[in-house]
Amino acid sequence: MKVEYELIHKDNNARYGKLHTNHGTFETPMFMPVGTLANVKTLVPDELKEVGSGIILSNTYHLWLRPGEDIVKKAGGLHKFMDYDGPILTDSGGFQVFSLAKNKNDITEEGVKFKSHIDGTKLFLTPEKSIEIQNKLDSDIAMSFDECIPPFSTYEYTKNSTERTLRWAKRGKDAFNNENQSLFGIVQGGAFEDLRKYSAEETVKMGFDGYAIGGVAIGEEKDVTYRMIDDSIRYLPEDKARYLMGVGEPLDIIEGIDKGVDMFDCVLPTRLARHGNAFTAYGKINLKNLKFKEDFTPLEDDCDCYTCKHFTKAYIRHLLVSKESLGGRLLSIHNIRFLIRLTEKARDAIKNDTYASFKEEIYSKYKN
Amino acid sequence: MKVEYELIHKDNNARYGKLHTNHGTFETPMFMPVGTLANVKTLVPDELKEVGSGIILSNTYHLWLRPGEDIVKKAGGLHKFMDYDGPILTDSGGFQVFSLAKNKNDITEEGVKFKSHIDGTKLFLTPEKSIEIQNKLDSDIAMSFDECIPPFSTYEYTKNSTERTLRWAKRGKDAFNNENQSLFGIVQGGAFEDLRKYSAEETVKMGFDGYAIGGVAIGEEKDVTYRMIDDSIRYLPEDKARYLMGVGEPLDIIEGIDKGVDMFDCVLPTRLARHGNAFTAYGKINLKNLKFKEDFTPLEDDCDCYTCKHFTKAYIRHLLVSKESLGGRLLSIHNIRFLIRLTEKARDAIKNDTYASFKEEIYSKYKN
Repeated sequence: MKVEYELIHKDNNARYGKLHTNHGTFETPMFMPVGTLANVKTLVPDELKEVGSGIILSNTYHLWLRPGEDIVKKAGGLHKFMDYDGPILTDSGGFQVFSLAKNKNDITEEGVKFKSHIDGTKLFLTPEKSIEIQNKLDSDIAMSFDECIPPFSTYEYTKNSTERTLRWAKRGKDAFNNENQSLFGIVQGGAFEDLRKYSAEETVKMGFDGYAIGGVAIGEEKDVTYRMIDDSIRYLPEDKARYLMGVGEPLDIIEGIDKGVDMFDCVLPTRLARHGNAFTAYGKINLKNLKFKEDFTPLEDDCDCYTCKHFTKAYIRHLLVSKESLGGRLLSIHNIRFLIRLTEKARDAIKNDTYASFKEEIYSKYKN
Repeated sequence: MKVEYELIHKDNNARYGKLHTNHGTFETPMFMPVGTLANVKTLVPDELKEVGSGIILSNTYHLWLRPGEDIVKKAGGLHKFMDYDGPILTDSGGFQVFSLAKNKNDITEEGVKFKSHIDGTKLFLTPEKSIEIQNKLDSDIAMSFDECIPPFSTYEYTKNSTERTLRWAKRGKDAFNNENQSLFGIVQGGAFEDLRKYSAEETVKMGFDGYAIGGVAIGEEKDVTYRMIDDSIRYLPEDKARYLMGVGEPLDIIEGIDKGVDMFDCVLPTRLARHGNAFTAYGKINLKNLKFKEDFTPLEDDCDCYTCKHFTKAYIRHLLVSKESLGGRLLSIHNIRFLIRLTEKARDAIKNDTYASFKEEIYSKYKN
């Protein structure tokens, strides 16, 4: 079965819906934690369910290198390999290999040359290979192989890349061979309105099971990011899920939902955790700060996560300062729960047609 | 309330009993996982309960340095600080500071001079200070400050040290000031039969709430280890718990129980886990070994731990090879469960008066 998106209610452009998959149904908007190497760092699947995670993302490039897609296939697919029975989305590997490719000659019509980040082995990834690996990983949703265009590229580069990504999408679609898996197309087009339109319309014409917006997680230039979302999403069909790739800052999620996005992913919650940071409704805090040394309150008083129900800032700070990995684990639980709870609250607001005031409230508190 | 040992059944010298504490009762023999810095590395308290851990050990030296005993006291004691409501035993810090003291002049009648392992700060630990810290940590069981005599010390050194440890035990007992906490004495005496007897008899005369046998975890010389246990335990009263310090190898636990030991502790299960090793009934295995690459079976088919119920050797190997800390966490759960299950099986054997054949069966399988 292919995934099916069910649109239940709209509040202006914000959408409340459900995505039905072979591994269960989850409500949208939803934040997807990233489990790069077939695990969301430090956590077991039961903990992902406990934080309300409806779907997780895993990385094709990393699993291709370790343990290798054939091992995962022999294990019975990614769900069985990591003992996670909920929905899984795999990326295409494009984002990683483009950041490993050393110069533009490494990017050809056929695919991308790059060196393994583990041992420098020369590797070559093509749209067909990306799909073949994902077919073997047997995730619920596979992603098209695309070029994530560097921010602020020239019009000419962006146009050529966007056209090539369309050809790659077609090649991947033709090579696709897993009837239990869905395939999402990806809209690129850089920061150029006409190229976003072109990319979105041509991608939709090919007919995918869902659509992603790529190349928008570019950092501080929020107005550019938000414009790129607008310039892409207006051409996407209402009856398919929309996934904004690599976006995990709370305010960006809030904006994305406002524009009609259904799914988000980002390594931010686990990466922040490893560096001792926690999300709160008022912004991020660093638990290593001396001011938390005798703070015997939870990270957030009203948070329902395992960490906040059991541990204090002083204890988490102690673990971090002592370099005990449990500290990162406890912060990962909280940070993932924070983003998922944010999408839960957004869903409630959409259902109640109060998304605008909800958004305003989040903005009024959240700083940084 | 002080801890109370209840002897329920004996099979030759092996004892099945219960230790009643202010934080609940646990059955003995029992293996205690080590939570050095107020956490058993990578695990939360719920996981310790799930593996059947009746009591955990925490390290006074480490908590003295980080976060400091006053922070723990302000948090409401160690149980509240780490959100663990089961029994906790704290060591005296002696083992750590003796290994940090650079030469014998650093060890005086008053106490021990040494440098912090964190920043080299000069520190001085006395019997009174060790007890004061433990009183503040508010563990269920505090340990006397002793010198863990280096193996194969001369008779003269061992005699002097053993006598000083007795004076330190007296000083600690006099300084002790926490009516909700118990204090265990420690038998030293090195590898000399008469000094073990002397140390045991004099320690028992002082009247502690339980007794430990120290200085026996000396490595490969098993015959010496086992003789030191015999030479100590025969002088200990039947109505108090007996704790064999630092012992965690499966066969040593089996021997200790045979001789009448009730409690064991060791960092081995978590340390082995961090290096990719797992206990099995047939000996230790290293999961990084290539032969486990496609082994889609659990660490042990009949193990009831969370790890074995959910994950395969191939998956754990993948996590370890990819340096994902979840691998160490999953192995820690299994390794701790393995030792606690070993003591569970030993308890059953004692109850059934079949300890001798149980011991033989363990020996016939376990290699290394």
